[in-house]
Amino acid sequence: MSEVEAKPRPAEGRGARRRRETRAKLVRAAHSVMARKGIDAATVQEIAEAADVAFGSFYNHFESKEAITEAIIAESIESFGDVLDRIAESVKDPAEVLSASVRYTVGRAAEDETWGWFLVRSGMSMAVFRVGLVKRMARDIRIAIDAGRFSVIDRDATVFAAGGAVLAIVTARLRGEIEEDAPERVAAIVLRMLGLSPEEAREIANRPLPALALIEPGEVSG
Amino acid sequence: MSEVEAKPRPAEGRGARRRRETRAKLVRAAHSVMARKGIDAATVQEIAEAADVAFGSFYNHFESKEAITEAIIAESIESFGDVLDRIAESVKDPAEVLSASVRYTVGRAAEDETWGWFLVRSGMSMAVFRVGLVKRMARDIRIAIDAGRFSVIDRDATVFAAGGAVLAIVTARLRGEIEEDAPERVAAIVLRMLGLSPEEAREIANRPLPALALIEPGEVSG
Repeated sequence: MSEVEAKPRPAEGRGARRRRETRAKLVRAAHSVMARKGIDAATVQEIAEAADVAFGSFYNHFESKEAITEAIIAESIESFGDVLDRIAESVKDPAEVLSASVRYTVGRAAEDETWGWFLVRSGMSMAVFRVGLVKRMARDIRIAIDAGRFSVIDRDATVFAAGGAVLAIVTARLRGEIEEDAPERVAAIVLRMLGLSPEEAREIANRPLPALALIEPGEVSG
Repeated sequence: MSEVEAKPRPAEGRGARRRRETRAKLVRAAHSVMARKGIDAATVQEIAEAADVAFGSFYNHFESKEAITEAIIAESIESFGDVLDRIAESVKDPAEVLSASVRYTVGRAAEDETWGWFLVRSGMSMAVFRVGLVKRMARDIRIAIDAGRFSVIDRDATVFAAGGAVLAIVTARLRGEIEEDAPERVAAIVLRMLGLSPEEAREIANRPLPALALIEPGEVSG
């Protein structure tokens, strides 16, 4: 299932289906325009044009640019976040949970650059630390700190610092400012920053990844 | 001396002086508009209006919004960067150099929020890692790593990660999302992320700061 389209509802009429399709077109177009130009610089006009939807129709679906931005986060970033939640549930070592989240996030940003740019730009211009991936990463880091797995000086500030570190590496990779860095290397760097020794950081970052195919939604119990 | 105004030149005529003053007004206005709205979202129109300068006159001074952005970085961020250069020259321990830079940067961003927002926004939407403060921080981290002072897994990626960590903490403070964090605490967190023990990180972050009054430009030899 694509992340920006809802499932067809059984009893849906023609009008409702068209409405849903237009909304999905707007979300896809906004995602792409914002990834390219930045969330701040994107205008409703451009989003409507890119979606091939009349300017006025935009407002039948979203109250404002902020509203469609929230929708993108909800539908694109949050749905990936659900993947991270399943990792958090299926992996025991809190350090390995964070490592797997970082690896999946960095890998996804490399595979799908639009998604990567949107992640970076939303991380930078919005309170993304309270939603989406970074919220989950923050949760995972807090759990690991509270379990004594990471030794840090200041929990809350370190959570922001680690989130900023991951976003900065993803940005540098998207811009081609650093050589291709395998997701495992990025995870090891982050674990090192959270107080693990280089050896332990590398070991954890290279453990076999939990196979997401095995923990798709609906496939996992609980 | 204000950071956005050049020194008066001795033989300057009236036209030249007015031209210089208009340019300085545009730079100040752009700095303030971009800090508020973001570099991407600020328009030449708004900058000219905020400076009380005719729209067309903007282009007598700057070719584009990108050109004035470069000028702000050159004049505001780079001039602060000169301060960091003097720290780098006057402090021996490379870990302490980085710590002092972080403390001055975090302190300045808290004292002057416009400057702080501009730092954050420029760090996020431009290749600021190649200019300005983060370029210097990158240099200082590389020197410390090469001197064996920091133990990290990947030098280049860690430089980006540490820069992102500092920017994320500055952003969180500007947004009021974390409690007031003394510059010393932020410096200690960054040193910890670069491989120092919590004890050593705290000790270095709390050493007396080199007094900048004593190393103002022109006051220092060499």
